[in-house]
Amino acid sequence: MSNPRITGIEIVDLRFPTSEEAHGSDAVHVDPDYSAAYVILTTDSEHAGHGLTFTIGRGNEIVCRAIESLSPMVVGRTIADIRRDRRGFWRALAQDSQFRWLGPEKGVMNLALAAIVNAVWDLEARVAGKPLWRMLADMPAEELVAAMDFHGIRDAVDEAACLAMLRANDATRAERIARVEREGFPAYTTSCGWIGYSDDKIRARCREALADGFTHFKMKIGQSIDDDVRRARIIREEIGAKNTLM
Amino acid sequence: MSNPRITGIEIVDLRFPTSEEAHGSDAVHVDPDYSAAYVILTTDSEHAGHGLTFTIGRGNEIVCRAIESLSPMVVGRTIADIRRDRRGFWRALAQDSQFRWLGPEKGVMNLALAAIVNAVWDLEARVAGKPLWRMLADMPAEELVAAMDFHGIRDAVDEAACLAMLRANDATRAERIARVEREGFPAYTTSCGWIGYSDDKIRARCREALADGFTHFKMKIGQSIDDDVRRARIIREEIGAKNTLM
Repeated sequence: MSNPRITGIEIVDLRFPTSEEAHGSDAVHVDPDYSAAYVILTTDSEHAGHGLTFTIGRGNEIVCRAIESLSPMVVGRTIADIRRDRRGFWRALAQDSQFRWLGPEKGVMNLALAAIVNAVWDLEARVAGKPLWRMLADMPAEELVAAMDFHGIRDAVDEAACLAMLRANDATRAERIARVEREGFPAYTTSCGWIGYSDDKIRARCREALADGFTHFKMKIGQSIDDDVRRARIIREEIGAKNTLM
Repeated sequence: MSNPRITGIEIVDLRFPTSEEAHGSDAVHVDPDYSAAYVILTTDSEHAGHGLTFTIGRGNEIVCRAIESLSPMVVGRTIADIRRDRRGFWRALAQDSQFRWLGPEKGVMNLALAAIVNAVWDLEARVAGKPLWRMLADMPAEELVAAMDFHGIRDAVDEAACLAMLRANDATRAERIARVEREGFPAYTTSCGWIGYSDDKIRARCREALADGFTHFKMKIGQSIDDDVRRARIIREEIGAKNTLM
């Protein structure tokens, strides 16, 4: 496998006016504009790494600024450097002695780190010529655990416990990989469940999702009990008794 | 009292190269460059409000960017608007439905809010013609409690408990105000206690602080036990048995 070096970072402040039609709305987030701080890591090879972090509008530019500030800690590194000590790479960014006052590992800084580190994983998968999920599934348990930072969670789970969990499932790994490749990975949909949708829109979204094969439907609640009951009734009518209303 | 309107915001990215001499260094923050995102709220009166938030270098520009993003929520308001519902003013900034995904009330966003809200308090005190501490000390307990947001802490302390605490001390309020005006407010110093100082610098800093009247001296620990013992011994020699080594 080649060893590309990260030579630059492109940061895109990406916005969608989802609040115009109440997409994504819930009791707390009444008018979200789905947005992303989108990162493209360029390299000295033909590969690039893509990553993003998700926000709901205002302040997406702050996350973009944070990515820009963190980028000198990524640009110049090679994939082999990062692979040699993935945990150290994460900690160098997440626990930098000056940046850590701005978080650490929460809020704006964690969102910015997510976009960058996701782009690095994406880059590595592209270089390996595999989808990222498959690269992770193929990774030896020791290597996966070595990539994880247990700082602050060690009272609940540590390296040994995590390794034991992965090893306990090792016998069924090949079978599970084959199933995902055959059937895909199960998912639920919230497409019908946002607060602020009209009856017609709820029904149309349920029918689209049923046609796509969904069996689990999530709805948002908490703004008005009467409205929650109304929407729950419509969704149940549409999806029937056997599908799951979440 | 006049009612100035906030007409603009000036944001200063202020840096001091304190790492060059290890000022402020401790076991985790080994090379801090003391910095501030400094806010000046301009008004249609002769008054301006000053506020700052403190960082230790890298990323101070991210906090400045966050202040810029939050500033439309402050510019245009009058002091009377804010005074009418101080809690609501805080919550409008801290819990905005889109911005709150970037925090809420932690990390970069909370640092940015601190600079802005401190500047608003400073402005109000200047308009009142009092130091801020004195304006707060003179404020009726009900008004002070009404300014506070108990969201997320109500299981530990609520409005009634807070009001009871303030009222319990009301009898001694005038006496305590007089004492602060006469003697100042007690403080400790860490000027001698940073990790990375030479013996000579520790001694010189202790002597300066003693000459300034300090009786409590804080030192940082945790990088090396031998170095901690060495510095503790020097500080104790300098400050004597009666002063407090923290």
